Amino acid sequence: MRAKRRLQTAQAVVCDRLAAPALPCDIPEHVEFHWVGKVAGHHPVPQDEITSLLVRLAKEGKQVVRLKGGDPYVFGRGGEEAETLVANGIPFEVVPSVTAAVAVPGYAGIPVTFRGEVVRVTMVTAHEAVKNDGPQVRWDLLAQDPHAMILGYMGVTNLPNVLQQLLDAGMDPDTPAALIERGTTSAQRQVISTVKNLPEDVHKHGLRPPALFAIGPTIRHAEKLDWFTKRPLHGERMVVVSPTPEFKDALELSGVELVEIPLPITPVARVVMGILPLTGCILKDADEVDALDDERDAPGWSHKMVAWCLSDEAAKRALERGWQHVHNLGKIRDGNDLAERIVVIQANSQSV
Amino acid sequence: MRAKRRLQTAQAVVCDRLAAPALPCDIPEHVEFHWVGKVAGHHPVPQDEITSLLVRLAKEGKQVVRLKGGDPYVFGRGGEEAETLVANGIPFEVVPSVTAAVAVPGYAGIPVTFRGEVVRVTMVTAHEAVKNDGPQVRWDLLAQDPHAMILGYMGVTNLPNVLQQLLDAGMDPDTPAALIERGTTSAQRQVISTVKNLPEDVHKHGLRPPALFAIGPTIRHAEKLDWFTKRPLHGERMVVVSPTPEFKDALELSGVELVEIPLPITPVARVVMGILPLTGCILKDADEVDALDDERDAPGWSHKMVAWCLSDEAAKRALERGWQHVHNLGKIRDGNDLAERIVVIQANSQSV
Repeated sequence: MRAKRRLQTAQAVVCDRLAAPALPCDIPEHVEFHWVGKVAGHHPVPQDEITSLLVRLAKEGKQVVRLKGGDPYVFGRGGEEAETLVANGIPFEVVPSVTAAVAVPGYAGIPVTFRGEVVRVTMVTAHEAVKNDGPQVRWDLLAQDPHAMILGYMGVTNLPNVLQQLLDAGMDPDTPAALIERGTTSAQRQVISTVKNLPEDVHKHGLRPPALFAIGPTIRHAEKLDWFTKRPLHGERMVVVSPTPEFKDALELSGVELVEIPLPITPVARVVMGILPLTGCILKDADEVDALDDERDAPGWSHKMVAWCLSDEAAKRALERGWQHVHNLGKIRDGNDLAERIVVIQANSQSV
Repeated sequence: MRAKRRLQTAQAVVCDRLAAPALPCDIPEHVEFHWVGKVAGHHPVPQDEITSLLVRLAKEGKQVVRLKGGDPYVFGRGGEEAETLVANGIPFEVVPSVTAAVAVPGYAGIPVTFRGEVVRVTMVTAHEAVKNDGPQVRWDLLAQDPHAMILGYMGVTNLPNVLQQLLDAGMDPDTPAALIERGTTSAQRQVISTVKNLPEDVHKHGLRPPALFAIGPTIRHAEKLDWFTKRPLHGERMVVVSPTPEFKDALELSGVELVEIPLPITPVARVVMGILPLTGCILKDADEVDALDDERDAPGWSHKMVAWCLSDEAAKRALERGWQHVHNLGKIRDGNDLAERIVVIQANSQSV
């Protein structure tokens, strides 16, 4: 909430690649935007340049939001940026956020603690494991406690190395272990395995970065507690124009990742739409079809996208515009109704 | 955002003591509320009764929100509740949240990681250290890594015991250590010390639960990066009726903890107002004075509260109603203006 309000009153935003899913698409066009992560073809900006940019914008008298993926202080280099602000006499506020190591396991059915099983949760960055300069993760110590969870950021490349170090230090090879790719998104995939078998299972399923790994006893709950990837519309990522809260809730609870955009489409909305492939649009009328059709060559879009039309007019225009997958759903009462209709149509299409 | 939306569409809410500061005060009166933590004189409800309550409400066909302090899966017993829902065939969604071990250190100027200093963050619950049944925290392992942070929940009573175990296992007695009481609130207090001296320093300053402890190298940044308790209006906790976002931002950025309530005052607003002592009200007109004056015997309220009046009419009514500390601020342009006036008046009062 606070982060969203600060964004609405900001004069400049400096934004990472990972932050974008948390970005409200209705940030006004006059707000000065700086993308400093790898977003849709932009190159990442070195840390010292980011810090200089923050200082420059603040000294120009602007209210600046530095938006990061996850929490700014959990492997987010927020401490370094804050120190530079202090050195330059620039007042600041830190808004804590949900870090991936907490959120992502929950979306894979893994409670990071469980009474009687785990009394310690450790977050590490597996990047450090292969560097020679600077402090190293003491995998030998982490290997020795069966009542603990280990949660690792950025772990795909280093995973075999990390697991071998844990095994060498005496960890039980049958300790549950998991890798979760693009956790919390429509593209989430996970592999549930053991310390011994995880590298092979990850290879078999072709999981790729960005991903988070988890090691420890509570992974045993994963299949039972997977509420996320089992939802009927999981995997769907749809654009919708200014939905009501009830409409949005119903679709989200059915498993759709909704990208909620305003018309006219803002530059921020274009970036957010392009972060992951879109699978469909929900279209109320011909104007919405026209506005969205203009985006068809943008990142995230493909000819496979489905037009879920909520009126004859919208369906007619989508066909005129050459959309290949048009479903005319007629008058839809609410989001639950829409979600049910989509599930039914998908089920029928698959059986044909 | 998602948590707030779910609350707005819920038919029943089951709520912990700690969750209340995150509660929107405008939850409608018709929503069925169950307080299961220690809130304003209510007794805490045992875990198995909470779980039964969730099942009963869901089986009555209600959309239920189970609201916890922090993240449901980080020492929050969310896993147990989720398993019971699965066993009863009740679909659910987990909304991750900011856990205290991440948020609270940041509000005390402590980045829980810092590049080149820390590659591991461990969250523990110090409660477990004194129990004889169930798994124990392996303090001996945690003591051996100087490039790690330890963050402990519920640690005041057990603190001397925990620190002694770390010292016995070889931790450097000069390792920085901190205790933070009621972190992120207007009542936040912190003691920055070392593993050797923390218990004595905590005793000297009289810190009490609820509190979180931190141990590790990044605490060295605390004084420099303390952006929170150094703000001019830190310690103020004020009630305000339906402020604009800009007004709210300006006061919050000055350090005020705002309790934003609707009129008429809802039952939820009463609970939230009573969680911590209030220091003032911001009053636009006589109606607001009348409505708030009716609450003067409620928890959180005292005769020391200041009426910050934004009109002659409000000031006149506050005096008529017997308020002892009334400041007539006249016409206030915006939140920044109000925050500055409050700072100036406080400074003058202190110097008299």
